[in-house]
Amino acid sequence: MAIGCPADSRKEGAKMNQTRSVWLQELTWEDVAAYLKADDIILFPIGSTEQHGPAGPLGVDSYAAIALAEDAARKAQVLVVPPLWFGDSAHHLDFPGTISLKTETLTAVAKDVIRSLARHGFKKIIVINGHKGTNIAALVTACRNLHQDELPDVLLALVDPLFLAKGIAHIKDAVEHHAGELEISHVWYKYPHLVKKENLTPGQVDLPPILSPFVHEDLFGKAGDSIEIFWNSREQRAFTPSGSFSDSSKASPNKGRQYHDHMVQNLVKFIAWLRQYKGPVGRSK
Amino acid sequence: MAIGCPADSRKEGAKMNQTRSVWLQELTWEDVAAYLKADDIILFPIGSTEQHGPAGPLGVDSYAAIALAEDAARKAQVLVVPPLWFGDSAHHLDFPGTISLKTETLTAVAKDVIRSLARHGFKKIIVINGHKGTNIAALVTACRNLHQDELPDVLLALVDPLFLAKGIAHIKDAVEHHAGELEISHVWYKYPHLVKKENLTPGQVDLPPILSPFVHEDLFGKAGDSIEIFWNSREQRAFTPSGSFSDSSKASPNKGRQYHDHMVQNLVKFIAWLRQYKGPVGRSK
Amino acid sequence: MAIGCPADSRKEGAKMNQTRSVWLQELTWEDVAAYLKADDIILFPIGSTEQHGPAGPLGVDSYAAIALAEDAARKAQVLVVPPLWFGDSAHHLDFPGTISLKTETLTAVAKDVIRSLARHGFKKIIVINGHKGTNIAALVTACRNLHQDELPDVLLALVDPLFLAKGIAHIKDAVEHHAGELEISHVWYKYPHLVKKENLTPGQVDLPPILSPFVHEDLFGKAGDSIEIFWNSREQRAFTPSGSFSDSSKASPNKGRQYHDHMVQNLVKFIAWLRQYKGPVGRSK
Amino acid sequence: MAIGCPADSRKEGAKMNQTRSVWLQELTWEDVAAYLKADDIILFPIGSTEQHGPAGPLGVDSYAAIALAEDAARKAQVLVVPPLWFGDSAHHLDFPGTISLKTETLTAVAKDVIRSLARHGFKKIIVINGHKGTNIAALVTACRNLHQDELPDVLLALVDPLFLAKGIAHIKDAVEHHAGELEISHVWYKYPHLVKKENLTPGQVDLPPILSPFVHEDLFGKAGDSIEIFWNSREQRAFTPSGSFSDSSKASPNKGRQYHDHMVQNLVKFIAWLRQYKGPVGRSK
Amino acid sequence: MAIGCPADSRKEGAKMNQTRSVWLQELTWEDVAAYLKADDIILFPIGSTEQHGPAGPLGVDSYAAIALAEDAARKAQVLVVPPLWFGDSAHHLDFPGTISLKTETLTAVAKDVIRSLARHGFKKIIVINGHKGTNIAALVTACRNLHQDELPDVLLALVDPLFLAKGIAHIKDAVEHHAGELEISHVWYKYPHLVKKENLTPGQVDLPPILSPFVHEDLFGKAGDSIEIFWNSREQRAFTPSGSFSDSSKASPNKGRQYHDHMVQNLVKFIAWLRQYKGPVGRSK
Amino acid sequence: MAIGCPADSRKEGAKMNQTRSVWLQELTWEDVAAYLKADDIILFPIGSTEQHGPAGPLGVDSYAAIALAEDAARKAQVLVVPPLWFGDSAHHLDFPGTISLKTETLTAVAKDVIRSLARHGFKKIIVINGHKGTNIAALVTACRNLHQDELPDVLLALVDPLFLAKGIAHIKDAVEHHAGELEISHVWYKYPHLVKKENLTPGQVDLPPILSPFVHEDLFGKAGDSIEIFWNSREQRAFTPSGSFSDSSKASPNKGRQYHDHMVQNLVKFIAWLRQYKGPVGRSK
Repeated sequence: MAIGCPADSRKEGAKMNQTRSVWLQELTWEDVAAYLKADDIILFPIGSTEQHGPAGPLGVDSYAAIALAEDAARKAQVLVVPPLWFGDSAHHLDFPGTISLKTETLTAVAKDVIRSLARHGFKKIIVINGHKGTNIAALVTACRNLHQDELPDVLLALVDPLFLAKGIAHIKDAVEHHAGELEISHVWYKYPHLVKKENLTPGQVDLPPILSPFVHEDLFGKAGDSIEIFWNSREQRAFTPSGSFSDSSKASPNKGRQYHDHMVQNLVKFIAWLRQYKGPVGRSK
Repeated sequence: MAIGCPADSRKEGAKMNQTRSVWLQELTWEDVAAYLKADDIILFPIGSTEQHGPAGPLGVDSYAAIALAEDAARKAQVLVVPPLWFGDSAHHLDFPGTISLKTETLTAVAKDVIRSLARHGFKKIIVINGHKGTNIAALVTACRNLHQDELPDVLLALVDPLFLAKGIAHIKDAVEHHAGELEISHVWYKYPHLVKKENLTPGQVDLPPILSPFVHEDLFGKAGDSIEIFWNSREQRAFTPSGSFSDSSKASPNKGRQYHDHMVQNLVKFIAWLRQYKGPVGRSK
Repeated sequence: MAIGCPADSRKEGAKMNQTRSVWLQELTWEDVAAYLKADDIILFPIGSTEQHGPAGPLGVDSYAAIALAEDAARKAQVLVVPPLWFGDSAHHLDFPGTISLKTETLTAVAKDVIRSLARHGFKKIIVINGHKGTNIAALVTACRNLHQDELPDVLLALVDPLFLAKGIAHIKDAVEHHAGELEISHVWYKYPHLVKKENLTPGQVDLPPILSPFVHEDLFGKAGDSIEIFWNSREQRAFTPSGSFSDSSKASPNKGRQYHDHMVQNLVKFIAWLRQYKGPVGRSK
Repeated sequence: MAIGCPADSRKEGAKMNQTRSVWLQELTWEDVAAYLKADDIILFPIGSTEQHGPAGPLGVDSYAAIALAEDAARKAQVLVVPPLWFGDSAHHLDFPGTISLKTETLTAVAKDVIRSLARHGFKKIIVINGHKGTNIAALVTACRNLHQDELPDVLLALVDPLFLAKGIAHIKDAVEHHAGELEISHVWYKYPHLVKKENLTPGQVDLPPILSPFVHEDLFGKAGDSIEIFWNSREQRAFTPSGSFSDSSKASPNKGRQYHDHMVQNLVKFIAWLRQYKGPVGRSK
Repeated sequence: MAIGCPADSRKEGAKMNQTRSVWLQELTWEDVAAYLKADDIILFPIGSTEQHGPAGPLGVDSYAAIALAEDAARKAQVLVVPPLWFGDSAHHLDFPGTISLKTETLTAVAKDVIRSLARHGFKKIIVINGHKGTNIAALVTACRNLHQDELPDVLLALVDPLFLAKGIAHIKDAVEHHAGELEISHVWYKYPHLVKKENLTPGQVDLPPILSPFVHEDLFGKAGDSIEIFWNSREQRAFTPSGSFSDSSKASPNKGRQYHDHMVQNLVKFIAWLRQYKGPVGRSK
Repeated sequence: MAIGCPADSRKEGAKMNQTRSVWLQELTWEDVAAYLKADDIILFPIGSTEQHGPAGPLGVDSYAAIALAEDAARKAQVLVVPPLWFGDSAHHLDFPGTISLKTETLTAVAKDVIRSLARHGFKKIIVINGHKGTNIAALVTACRNLHQDELPDVLLALVDPLFLAKGIAHIKDAVEHHAGELEISHVWYKYPHLVKKENLTPGQVDLPPILSPFVHEDLFGKAGDSIEIFWNSREQRAFTPSGSFSDSSKASPNKGRQYHDHMVQNLVKFIAWLRQYKGPVGRSK
């Protein structure tokens, strides 16, 4: 069930009456108080609303974060904060429907949410960023500074498929960049009606002439010597009029399942590790 | 269907294949580009994740905003931005699970989202705030200043049940304040499994001794001479240990339906008015 | 006597030697130290310098705040902070002479002044906003957040004629909006030479075609279902070239006196209530 | 007449009906529009509310700015913005009654007021800072950056007795520092009832042992090699329990008159110079 | 020669009179004007002042950035901005001598410097960050947003040894983390007197028990599935009392030379590529 | 030796092995820890990169700060922070090569550096600003507020040749303003190869017609009655196309030596005074 969707909850029916929902927004404050007596871990999914080519819905990154958070939470029996649907997506703003928070706004939102959680006694907060590299500057800024300055006794972790799925990326057939094979497969697997399969595209932007021979072409591949050149939304619209950077034609629900399960399994392992962890991080006093 | 919930969309099945979803995050950028050729109105639901007493889920205000936006959008055939689940809820922070954005953060998020929409050509943007008075300072600040300084040709409107439901409030039996009869009824009607009916409470906080004889007791009632005294979360926890300010025992799905339908009807009328509106607002150049 | 005006003080002559001025700026720091041994209440008048039609001086809102603060202070024997003459008036900026602080600047000023007062031991600080709805977002933001985050043991209250004069508004003949009958009467009564009586106007802007049928037309009247549309200064200049929104032709010093006295009386009652108040607000520790 | 004081205006009676008030807040927007057809100069007095020893009222710096602005404006026939009563006075905060804006807040207020004036067509804006050295960082920051970045065609000038009265300072008998002979004389001359003559004091803080041999002791004297050491309000209270830094016992209305007239004369000359000035400053386009 | 050091320049004597210095600060504005007639590339070295274990000087990252910028500039005949010696080093603040800018301050400095350069006509600006991962969030934020919002026609690139030296990292013997073999070798090669060879240490912090099995241990190694946990300065001091994270005992000037030359060569190639580059990046208008 | 220049350090050879470098960046954190056991004074040189006419390098102000800090540090045996090469130089931005930080950015950098130092136990921090009047607003703001709000037990001092060299200024032949005789002499003496002697100029801008008869013409001369008018970079380029404000033709290394030695001597005296100082400043607890 995603994000407080009643229909879905109704389907899960009886179970929901027994097993508490993992979503914070569906609980009363007394439910949360009860949870905090026994546990102190919570997940915070952050995505984006930005163009993902002709086949992917604008919410791809948010759906990725939601799916990972929800499934890991159920398996590991922890809670999930309602998702933030907006990220740092300025370089996509020339494609209609993209919504972008300024980098500082995203940092501020992440800080405020984490501060609120810490106040209630959550001590291990895992930010799940949904395959969205440009969110990372804002989220690292939020987490690192909060832990240094305000919340030394709260452990903050940042997860992103870009880093969590290295070990499964070999299943893909194409070089993967924005709106690529794996992230489209991921949404296809979890929310099949949201992918426009007829629009999947073998197109691949040839990046080195645009971003130098030092570009890092495959986000899941081994990087060689690289230098980052920053492009803006107008330039992006010029070099990829469809919005897709890489070949999504080999995307499939089956790849999405493997990719998703690999990450959920990692998250569950990580949460288990956190449960037995004694510091030093988050125990600095 | 709420917020990109696949189960629900599946239920709506065939219709969804024909009629485009109203939710931006479920569309591709090309869908939005097509919409913008014919229309320029969009709704932006903003709620909160804050305690709503022993019976209401933390997401009450968000569910209110989502329900109003979604149903009005379907009836009026306009689009909806994915919801913001976080509001300005600091005075509830002593109740576990409450998440609060700073006032300035909420203003920043609202501004960034509206700027993004305006860039794509949305010219009439309706912010739907879900029964959440403390969000209003931040949202008024965002909308008024954006329209004055940056977006003179975009019409911005702000909706809240506190103001939109005056004409139907007579159906309630009790004085209404936080976590009161009407907002609980609203969620009960739209998302029945999320209300803990067994926890509805006739308790009513006696506000004048706490907030002076000049307090405005009934948020839907006629105000007399009033003065605002500001209370904080520790004080709130002290004067209402349950988190409920007013009697919710008479809440019912039926009242929720009347309340909801009244507001959706108003929104649909307002959108119709906007469609024929020629200015001067939003036509200042 | 207004704002440290020596002529006026001279007039009050002997009395001033006996009875301390109510204005902070006229006292030495030792006078204030003496006051704080016995009392902890202070008033802070905030107005604006913005167009008030062809008959009202730019300082109308400031004069309202000053008059209320000064007279209530004398009657209740409390102190008054020197006035802030500038408010959040951006939507009037197309009329010469209007001065506007950004919303955030106004919040910052209010916070800094209140912090300074709290540091000295003032525990009950009443902000008196002079009939200036657009200041309210900034002032609520300042007061609510200060009390939540920094000054839990200081009671902050916000007063505005929009809310404090509901019970007397029936004396007016016209619908009241900006530069309307009551606020002009108020200044006329207290500062008669500042109103250009020959410029009073029966003109009334027909707001529903401009701001939708859901506009709240009479600021002192009972609101029906309403939605806020934000207009900017260029639009305002277009729909009311004179700057007056509503009929001021029935303004009179007599109405001003009734209106003023009603509010001063309320303020005196409120201060009396504060004097005996034991919490919980401002006693949160 | 000071700051919208009705009594005083009444005294000036008939004249006021003929000669427009110099104070912006007493005029209608149409009066200002008329002024702007013929002139483009305006004065903006900024002071403080801060301790000035046992004899001086908290408003000394504001009264200085008001008196200079008002008298220069009358003589030169220009307008005056309502005064800002609050300055950057943090180092006085250990004395009751002192109100301090943060440096950034003061910069923001000054910028907002100047921006508003520039928008209406004021092209030469003179900030009159009332003998208040610690305001200068904020005001220089505001003026210099506005003129560089936003208002290249507006001439901004900053006046302070510390710099404008060098040529008359020889009339004083004592070394002058905070709450000293000249500024007390100034208020005594203009607002005699506000000085507590019985509290004038010959006390002089011996600054070199406190602030090094490189301290600049006499604010109006020739500086030798100097280094600035910053002290805070607690330290100030410790080294001058009365709040006075220098001997005020020789203060007199007569010295105040000479000091005041010298500066008013300078201001009138400066305004005359501005009237014939053709650039390059403020003519950068 | 580093950073405008006269001794060094004197040594280079005659050459300097013929060949212009590459350092901006050593040139007159007319020299820069002449350069801009022929070229539009400039390098901006950014480092840190932070602990680098018992053997490395606090300036290691700055020396790395300076050495790379200076040598690449000489070979490619481009200019270099004076270095920024301060970075985002909060997690090292428990070691004396570390200086840290807030993330937002570092972003602001980078933006201001780049804006200044762009104003003069520099069109390709290469930020060289000296092996300092925690600077990256701030610098990416600066560059990406400037290029999106303010400087669409300026190409901004970001270089860091972490990414530019992947192809040479195989020369090291140890896992490399903070104060490791390669960065110590780098300084040793270029500034041999600044490394305390007697303090090189084989110590290696065992990170997985501290930062989870998902830690990325070798900054130059291939990452597996990883999750970032944020630690603060107190925790760091606890888990590495010497400040060194990894074995520096195999550091040598020879390794430093290979590492340095590899990167300088890459930079020279990149600058050559930039010289012939026609867009689309930086040509968005 | 300037700023971590290895060549120079090598020259000082043996001495450096015995006597620790005065530059923080050349030390290990353990060296700094050792220093802090015995001393708590440190110097922080701040300059600018801005045009200094046809003869002076862009780094003149930085070189001044570096030279003063380095020589005073060696004589007084204290440490020096690596220099900040960037200042508040917006009014020079129309001359190529000038780099300017916003006033707020400069304040932020100064605050962050000082906070870092204070954290390690430095109790007396001397900011040495290199003949750069426009930096002063930012630096005063940083120092005064830090000492008031955050670091009451740290003594902060601000030095600038404008104030420290009053007693030696008589050696100059010309009126001194930007890029004038003394500051050029200073760099000439310390870094002779950086001054283009062939470009020294007798030109003197006639300031009174530009900045009013109330301009303060000679920065080292006695000020008469003065008023500050703010000019921007475009205006500056117009009134001094060469960038020089005053006659530098009489500059000489000998004058530079006298000027430099006078200030270094003052600094050494001041440091000696600080060493025996017992408060009250910096001892406020």
